[in-house]
Formats: sequence, structure tokens, C-alpha cells
Amino acid sequence: MEIIEYKPTTEELAYTFGGNAPRRTIKPGTAVRLWTQDAFNNTIQTVNDLSSEKVDMRFVNPQTGPFFIEGAEPGDALAIHIVDMKPARTYGISSTIPFFGGLTSTDRTAMLQEPLPDTTWVYEVNTERQTVGFEARYGDMKIEFPIECMFGTIGVAPAGNEVRSALVPERFGGNMDSPEVRKGSTIYLGVNVEGAMFSIGDGHYRQGEGEACGTAVEGAMDAIIIIDLIKGAAPAWPRIEDDNYYMTVGSSRPMEDSWRIGQVELVRWFQELYGLHQLDSYQLLSQITKAPIANVVDSNFSVVIKAAKDLVPHASAFKGMHESLRERAKGLSL
Amino acid sequence: MEIIEYKPTTEELAYTFGGNAPRRTIKPGTAVRLWTQDAFNNTIQTVNDLSSEKVDMRFVNPQTGPFFIEGAEPGDALAIHIVDMKPARTYGISSTIPFFGGLTSTDRTAMLQEPLPDTTWVYEVNTERQTVGFEARYGDMKIEFPIECMFGTIGVAPAGNEVRSALVPERFGGNMDSPEVRKGSTIYLGVNVEGAMFSIGDGHYRQGEGEACGTAVEGAMDAIIIIDLIKGAAPAWPRIEDDNYYMTVGSSRPMEDSWRIGQVELVRWFQELYGLHQLDSYQLLSQITKAPIANVVDSNFSVVIKAAKDLVPHASAFKGMHESLRERAKGLSL
Amino acid sequence: MEIIEYKPTTEELAYTFGGNAPRRTIKPGTAVRLWTQDAFNNTIQTVNDLSSEKVDMRFVNPQTGPFFIEGAEPGDALAIHIVDMKPARTYGISSTIPFFGGLTSTDRTAMLQEPLPDTTWVYEVNTERQTVGFEARYGDMKIEFPIECMFGTIGVAPAGNEVRSALVPERFGGNMDSPEVRKGSTIYLGVNVEGAMFSIGDGHYRQGEGEACGTAVEGAMDAIIIIDLIKGAAPAWPRIEDDNYYMTVGSSRPMEDSWRIGQVELVRWFQELYGLHQLDSYQLLSQITKAPIANVVDSNFSVVIKAAKDLVPHASAFKGMHESLRERAKGLSL
Amino acid sequence: MEIIEYKPTTEELAYTFGGNAPRRTIKPGTAVRLWTQDAFNNTIQTVNDLSSEKVDMRFVNPQTGPFFIEGAEPGDALAIHIVDMKPARTYGISSTIPFFGGLTSTDRTAMLQEPLPDTTWVYEVNTERQTVGFEARYGDMKIEFPIECMFGTIGVAPAGNEVRSALVPERFGGNMDSPEVRKGSTIYLGVNVEGAMFSIGDGHYRQGEGEACGTAVEGAMDAIIIIDLIKGAAPAWPRIEDDNYYMTVGSSRPMEDSWRIGQVELVRWFQELYGLHQLDSYQLLSQITKAPIANVVDSNFSVVIKAAKDLVPHASAFKGMHESLRERAKGLSL
Repeated sequence: MEIIEYKPTTEELAYTFGGNAPRRTIKPGTAVRLWTQDAFNNTIQTVNDLSSEKVDMRFVNPQTGPFFIEGAEPGDALAIHIVDMKPARTYGISSTIPFFGGLTSTDRTAMLQEPLPDTTWVYEVNTERQTVGFEARYGDMKIEFPIECMFGTIGVAPAGNEVRSALVPERFGGNMDSPEVRKGSTIYLGVNVEGAMFSIGDGHYRQGEGEACGTAVEGAMDAIIIIDLIKGAAPAWPRIEDDNYYMTVGSSRPMEDSWRIGQVELVRWFQELYGLHQLDSYQLLSQITKAPIANVVDSNFSVVIKAAKDLVPHASAFKGMHESLRERAKGLSL
Repeated sequence: MEIIEYKPTTEELAYTFGGNAPRRTIKPGTAVRLWTQDAFNNTIQTVNDLSSEKVDMRFVNPQTGPFFIEGAEPGDALAIHIVDMKPARTYGISSTIPFFGGLTSTDRTAMLQEPLPDTTWVYEVNTERQTVGFEARYGDMKIEFPIECMFGTIGVAPAGNEVRSALVPERFGGNMDSPEVRKGSTIYLGVNVEGAMFSIGDGHYRQGEGEACGTAVEGAMDAIIIIDLIKGAAPAWPRIEDDNYYMTVGSSRPMEDSWRIGQVELVRWFQELYGLHQLDSYQLLSQITKAPIANVVDSNFSVVIKAAKDLVPHASAFKGMHESLRERAKGLSL
Repeated sequence: MEIIEYKPTTEELAYTFGGNAPRRTIKPGTAVRLWTQDAFNNTIQTVNDLSSEKVDMRFVNPQTGPFFIEGAEPGDALAIHIVDMKPARTYGISSTIPFFGGLTSTDRTAMLQEPLPDTTWVYEVNTERQTVGFEARYGDMKIEFPIECMFGTIGVAPAGNEVRSALVPERFGGNMDSPEVRKGSTIYLGVNVEGAMFSIGDGHYRQGEGEACGTAVEGAMDAIIIIDLIKGAAPAWPRIEDDNYYMTVGSSRPMEDSWRIGQVELVRWFQELYGLHQLDSYQLLSQITKAPIANVVDSNFSVVIKAAKDLVPHASAFKGMHESLRERAKGLSL
Repeated sequence: MEIIEYKPTTEELAYTFGGNAPRRTIKPGTAVRLWTQDAFNNTIQTVNDLSSEKVDMRFVNPQTGPFFIEGAEPGDALAIHIVDMKPARTYGISSTIPFFGGLTSTDRTAMLQEPLPDTTWVYEVNTERQTVGFEARYGDMKIEFPIECMFGTIGVAPAGNEVRSALVPERFGGNMDSPEVRKGSTIYLGVNVEGAMFSIGDGHYRQGEGEACGTAVEGAMDAIIIIDLIKGAAPAWPRIEDDNYYMTVGSSRPMEDSWRIGQVELVRWFQELYGLHQLDSYQLLSQITKAPIANVVDSNFSVVIKAAKDLVPHASAFKGMHESLRERAKGLSL
């Protein structure tokens, strides 16, 4: 397997899905060892760095990519397997950006109240214990939490010649902020433009479901991924597969629509996997799906729908792509 | 500990929270061995029984109760511990009630399309393997799923002299349809009226998160619960505690509001438990909460917010009520 | 025509739809000269009276009624014609109740921000010019606005034995807060219980669409209405007719669902009025309806859908009830 | 005043806001006599042309433009005055595109039901009576409705290097589908990129508020507009002024957020116009605003908030731009 190394320069970082020239051209089946900048674009390093003073919202969630995938055409599915990932810094950052987050009014859920205090938290990475350290800013509490690395953004160029901010989760993937986009997962994205124009970023050292305050434990990331292609197999919305679950992600507003999108997509996937009638698929999944919220803070809200593989007969999704990628991932490491 | 047996007659079943005379008066600390009717009120027994022909929506989710809890006053918290529960029938029922459910238009999300076909599924209970059997109605697939009993409804009389249908989840509990309301859980509900007027019902032999098609594997249930009282400790919204999690449940529309309610309630609970500043509680929980959807099909949509106990320092919620109830539950069984 | 006078005592005021004994029994076709208390229950009289100190949210929107309408049965339609109404006080009151209103977080759209300052505005009534006077509380501006009286609440007892707070707009009418509920309008409400149990209140001397800050220019009201009955003609949701418009009101959350409910109800009404196919009714109304928002601050949000009579052929709704009531109203006045 | 004539060739039509080379460069203060293609891109001409067969959703709402406005920079406001507009065809078209519209499930409000029948209506234009003729497709009814021309789309390039489909209403204007964008109105849009890149299209011969079925009476349009520039005066969201109203437009989901955005924007505008404190502006507008829904069918839902000029003291918005444009428009006609 070909392995490419890619660490973008500051100038190479991208801030949109679509609208950027490819940084690299890659053959399907290639492994990429890459680095991603943190969501704040490295503007915040200490608790004295306030987001309202340092962060330019036009340059957040910097993307590593886009990669032009040879042979990818509209209607194909891109399969991205996350082989491994780990913090590329000794600390992670979180902050309550004014009028951004889930428990504050925003530019969309517009109100007249004053913003919450702009506050920054720095989480020290303990490599040995594999933890990040929470330190209260208005009190004395200190707790260490396990590192659970994930990517907040993973996506391709949108359809219809659109270009979308890296803050947006959508049909093309993007800023879904789901903890399921982690080591061991395979993400399937429908290709909309020639070459797919894949990019990735917004690494989180850990994140709660919902990403309540608007930011996770944000940090630069080292990762190795394998990018592959399945001709003519584009899902309508992002799908994820790992060893234990079939998953879909819906992103819209209000949040019940995100759920509806994901649930319909999984109903359809199960119809494909098992030759089920729509109503039987609906019924069966009603009794077994998990439905964790991913984010309630981005331009669209994201909900994951997942069905455990051990509850249903074995099936081969996307021609066994996930199993194949797991196999190929062996021996690769950071 | 006093143990009461209570199996309601058909006439004693209640269909609202509030508005009913108490069926029993109970001292705090009493264990109740009870039986609940299924959500369809036993009108559906075979796949030939269609919900559109058999079910009267005014008489669904029949409640066992209400129980008058001695000494309970507005501002108190009721603590309900589910000691054990198991199917009281040899089969469970699920159906796609026309214009009811998550992937259909409804009387609220009103549209002009035709309803989905009214279909009934019967799940046979296998006591030995502790499974329920799915059988496709439009194909041949058969699968057995583990029984995971839970109560869809658990609640008290509302505030402000309101009386609400047993289909409603709200501040007073009610039809939250969360899989977390199961054996081993302690549910805390704020008391609104003298005696609290507690009731329970809508047993599910299992249910996916979201209860997508509108009905779980519905069935009559045998259960044993302990009901206790904590003076002056009413939470604003339902809280749940088990050995592993602190949980809250928000119920409203749109679903992001359900999430906001639950997340704010857990922020407040953690402020109480650990003496945290609001912003530190917000931050800390942003990195550790799980946010499973409970239902997207009832009068309000319900979202559970949960924080794992093993991630945070030990604390004593509601004066150690859950631990005390666990202790008292030992030796009790169905 | 029989005319009844009714001014409730303080003890007779009702705070829920449903759940109250009838204050009067009335024959269909009776005119009622009545008085309604203001929404704050007369607790606020000067700018120094703050809602957070004076208002008990359990006792707001006091209702005049309920009236038991002889012969009214589930499935019938109540027709309420507002013959005339005028301020019963020399001033109206508005206030920004903390965590209540459209541009603030609330107990449902829950956030962590501080509330807006609790402020009271007193609007002096100028009977001669028929105006209410706005006076800025944080500056010098004074403006007079025309008095445009309306009732915020008008409703019947809910179905299914429910009892709902007088703050709730729903299928049974209630706190719709629509400026269309005014002199000259006929409101049609589906009857849910024997006697209908009709009540009215929450008079506004004027109100913008949306009732943005949560309260209109609230004031006690003198009014004269005629109450009539149409057997077997219950609409699914409230309908309103005046000389110029056919109107429906949808109330739910999110607000697009309120719109959907109202639009579907008007599609159905036009099918009845003109024998139209559903799709033709949908199409026709798409090109002519007005869709003013009524409230974005109550337990449900309300949207009015209206079609101008002068755009469509003459038709006779509810057997000509509105025209008949207009005729009968002649000669009646306050 | 300079007058430019511009009728785009088919190749010059644009389908996005942003992402297109300028078709013309224009000095501020120029009048443009232009033509716009209909929203279906002229693919539907008779009732036998079905949208599901003829319409390519990537090529709808074709835009006339973009125009590069000399001197326009981020932070400026573009002022567009619609001097006159009239149908450029003898018929208008409306259709129920499958899974598109307000009373059907969609790709976002995803459900499992069958689509509504794909149906096309042709409205004949009667120039003499200035009407369009509705003809029932499933019955015999015929009605003529007054022509009330408006533009569904009017917008500039988005901020942050985004490119958005011409189906999207947003902060940059776009597909707001408001009847207020008509002859006599001045639309103010914040400039996001050098030259503003203004475009216009989606003419409607008439439309109900909400655009319920998803399409208005769609038709090609002749129009004359004046484009001017106000340095440093960008509003956060679109504002509209005509002789009678100050208006704002909010576009988001759920619809209460569209309302909140528009209401906050008008609160701010009134603070600017009258030097009001935020709370006084909130209160004053609560009693006088109209809140008509614009669309409930596009990627975002749009709500207009409007305050009548005759209710408030005279003020000069945007340095008297609307009055100035009205003056300059005299003598211009189609």
C-alpha cells in the first residue's frame, strides 16, 4: 500500500468544503499520514487568550486537504478509514465563545440577553495516563478525563457548486462533531464532484455528545487514514461503520429533522443489506437503534443513528469495504 | 419494609396524569409489587388486529395508579426505585399507527400525504433465552432480540391544576419513553400536588432510542418498585440515577429544546453536587455527557443527558437516596 | 335574543381550560355582556410594580367562564361572535417577565444567560383619541398608538379529560394571542365535552403580531359576545371568519408545525366550501393565503392562515353562521 | 441617471450566490432594465410537463447577474430599489414538485410516505384585467387572481467565501420568497465581498405568504431597478423599506428562529432610528409589528417583521436612501 505523508503549511489550510484547489492527488487505496491544526487555528494557548479577542470566525476549523481522489466521480462513495490518531500537542483548549454554543443565544437563536463570560480552559495532556486535565476556572476542581480522540470535521466538496464553511455539517459530511469519527471507524461519503475533494480536521482530544459549550477539548492531531473508493455506491447522507455498529448521520435544523434524516437513511441501508421491505426495516430498527446526539451547536445539528451488528445477521456493507480496510490497516501506526 | 401488592382492575386504570382519585395511599419507603397493562390497552393480540380499527387513542398508555404518597407536598422530590421488572405476557406488540410515529406526518407535523400502511407485528417472548422474536410482515426475516424491560411512562400529577394525557412527557415525568427507566434505576420527580399522585405504565419489552415507529415492543409488565420521598428537594425536571450515571430528561419541541432543558438541568445538578460555578459545570459536562434521544414521537420529544459516575469524584445525590434504595432492594424480587 | 350580564367575582375567575365548574348555563344564541380581568390579574398598576415580585404565574390569564352551553356535545362546533369590546380601565400594562417572551431564553429554550431586566410599561388610555400611550422607560420617547382591542384567550375544555393552563393555545383554542380575535370576528371551536365549557379572557388594548416581549398592552375588558352552536360541525382546529377572511389557527412547536396545521386546516375548509380536490385546494391557497404569526411566546406558538373572501367565489361557511351572527349583532352594543 | 439594459443569455444565467464571474460592472446609482428567467428555467410550459421529468434541481431559480458594483466593499450596504416589474410571458406556472413544498415530507423533514402526485398548473395572464387564471386540475373551478409581481430571489455573494444555491435564503438575501420584494420597495443588503456580486431572479406573478406548495405563479419577468450603495452601513440581515413600512427578514430553521432574527434586527434598527434603549425598542415593537411568514419551503424558512411608518415619528433610514430612490425612479418605466 502506498503511504503519503502530508502536513499542510499554514497557507495550505482550507476553511471551506469546496472552493479550494487540491493540495494533493491520491490514488484510491492510499494511506495518508497527516497532521491537522486545531479548530481555533492555534490562536489560543493559555487561559488568558480569549476567543473574542483572538479568534477570527472566518478562519476556524482549518482543513487538511482537500485531496483529489483519482477516479472519484459524482455518484461514487468515498470510504475513509481512520487507522490511528493521537494528540499532536501537550494541551487541548476549550472556550465559551460569546453567542456560540448550545446553552446560549446565538446569531440564529437570536435574543437580547448579554453573552456568557468569555472563558478559556486549558487541558494538559498526560501522555502516560492518556488523559486530559480539566481545571475549574472559577473554583478549585481538577479532574483527569481519558483521551478519546476524534475528528470534528470530515467531508467532501458539496453538490450543486456550493462552497460551505468548515463550520457546517451537511449531506457532504463536514462539521458533524460526532465522537464516532474515531480510530477504527470507516466513514462513507457520497462524492459530488470529480476527485471528491476530501478534507479533514477539527481534532478533539475528547468531546461529550452534543458538544454543549460549542467547543470540545480542541487540539492539533496526528493521524493515519486510508482513503478508498466504491464506484456508484454514494449514500444520500454520511454513513459510518465500525466493528460493532452500522451508523448514519443526519444534520439539519430543527434537531428532529436531523434525527429523521439519519433514521430514514438507516432504514434504507437495512433494506439494502437485508432485502427488507421498508416497513419491516422501519419496525426492526425502531426496536434496536441507538440515537446519540452529535452536536447542537453548529450551523446544522447532527444526530447519529446506530444499529449494533451483534443484534442482526452478518451482512456485507459496501462490498465488505470496512473489513477490507481493517485488514489493510494492520501494521500501520503513528 | 412494607410491601404492597397492587394489580388494577380495568376500571381502575387511569389515562391521565392528574385528574384521578388515588387508587392506594402509600407511606414513603414502601415497596409496591404491581402489574401494568400494555400501551394498546390489550386491544391488539394478533397481526390481524389493526391499530386503526382497535385502538381508541383516548384509552392508551393505561396507568397503574395514581398512588397518594403520604406526606408528599409541592417542592418535595419523589424517588422511585425500580427493583425488578419482567414481561407479564408471552408476546409483545408493535404497530405503525396511522399518522403516529417519527417517520410519518402527524396531526402536528401535518401534511397532505397518505398514511403508511397500518401494520401490526407480534413479538413472541422466549423466557428461556430472554428474547423477543421479530418476524417480518412483508418478507421472511426472523430475528431474536434480548429482552430489555423498561417503563415508557412514570410520572406525577402536573402543577397548576393541569391534567395531561398519559401520552405526554413533561416536567412531571410522564411518557418519556426512555430505556433508562429500567431495573436498577432511581427516578426523581418534583412533587406538584399533595400526595404527589404517582403512576406508572407503558411497559416495553425492548425499545430503540427514539421509539422511531411510535411504538416499542409493548406488553403488560410485572414489577416491583420502592417509592420514597425527599423533603424539599424537587428537581425542576426529571432526574435519574443508577449505579453508573447521573441523568436528566428534557421533554419539549423542537428537540433542541429538549436537549437544552436536560443539559441545563444537569449543569445545575453538578453545581449542587460539586459546588461548581455554572461556567465550570457547563464546561466540564460539555466534555463528558452522553446525549441519547429517548423519543421523537410523543406530544413532546424527550432527550436524556447523562454523565458517567466513574469519570467524576464520588458524590452523594439526594442525600444518598439511590445507594440507600439499592440496599433496601436487596432481597426483593418478582 | 336573550342577553345575559356576567361579571365574575375574583373567586369565580378560572385559570385553566377544563377542570372548572360552570359559572353560568347558556342557551345557544344567547348574547353575553361580560367583563374580563387583565392577564396580570390586576397585580401590576404602576411602573414600580415588577412582574417578578407581583405576578404568580399560576394565576395569570384569568378566564371569564366557563359557560355551559346547553346541548353542546363532542363533535359540535361552538360559534362565538364578538359583537363589541372596549377597555374597562384607563390604562394598560406590559412588562418583560424574566425568562418569558420571544427574545429571551425561557424555561423551554433553556440557556445559562442572565434574564433581561424586569421592566413595566404603563400605557394610558385616551378615550377621546382612542389611543394608548407608550412612554419609554429608559429614555424620553412618547407615542400614542390606536386602540385595537382583541382577546388573547378564547377556548373550550380540551378533549381526553385534559385540563390545560390558560397560558396554552391548542386545538381547543386557548391562548392563541391573535389580533384576529376582535370585534366583528366569529370564532369556531370544536366541542370536546358536554356543555363545551367555554371561557374567554386576556384582553389586549393592542398587540403586535408575535407578541414579541411576551405581553401585549394588557387590560381589563368590557365586551359583548353571542354564543351559538352548530351541531356536528366541529373543525379539527380553531377557525375564524369575519367579513373579509376565512381563517384558521395552528398552535404547536416548532413554529413551522403551527403553520402546517393551519395551512392543512384551510386546505380542508376550502375542499368543503368549494368541493375542491385536495391538490387543487393546496394549489389555490398557495397563491392567495396570508400567514401572520400570532404568538411566539406561549406554550405553543400560533400562526394564522387567512384567505380573502373577495378573491374567491362567495360560499357559505357553517351554514351561513357568520352572516347570521352579524345580523343578530345589530342593535347590540356596550 | 445611467440606464443599463441587460437580458442574460442562457449561458449567462447563474445558479448560485457567489462563485460566478460578474456579468456586468455597474456604478452605484445606475438603473438596470433587466429580464429574469422563471424558476423552472423554462422547462415547464403546459400541464403535461411534470416537474419530476423536466426539472433539474441544480438549475432552478436562474439568476440575472451577478453585477459587480463599483466601490462596494465588505461592510457597505447595497440599496436596491424596484422601480417597476411586469410579466414577460403570457402564462405562469406552478407545480407540486415531489418531496418539495410545505405540506409534504422533504429531503430534510424526511419520512417514509409516498409523495403527493406531481401536478402542474398553468395560469394564463390576462394583461387587460391584470390577472392570472387558476384552473383546477382535478375539477372544474376557474378563478382569476390579481397579478402582484414580486421577486423570489434577490441577493449578494455570501461571506466567508461561501457559495450558496439560488434556493437558499440567508443573511445575504437570496431565496426569501417574500411578497414584499416588489415594485416600490427598497431592499438593503450587507456587502460581503468586493463588488457585492448582486443578482436577482425567481419572478412570481403572485404568491401567497408561505409559498405553501413550494412554487408560486412562476414566470419570466421584465423589470427596472436602481442599484445604489451606502458606505459602511451594512445591516446584519436584509432590511426592506417602502413608503409604508420598515421591514426586516430573518431566514433560518426552525421558523421561530427566523422570527427571532427578524425581530432582533428590527429592534436594532429602531434603536438606530430613534436612539431608543434596547428594552424600549423591544417593548414598542412588541405592540406594533406585523409578522407575515414569507416561505416555509426553502432551505431556510423566511419571516418578515414590519413596522408601519404612520405609527411612529418620521425618521430617516440609511440617510434617506429610500426617499431619494423614489425620487430618482420617477420618469423611469418599463
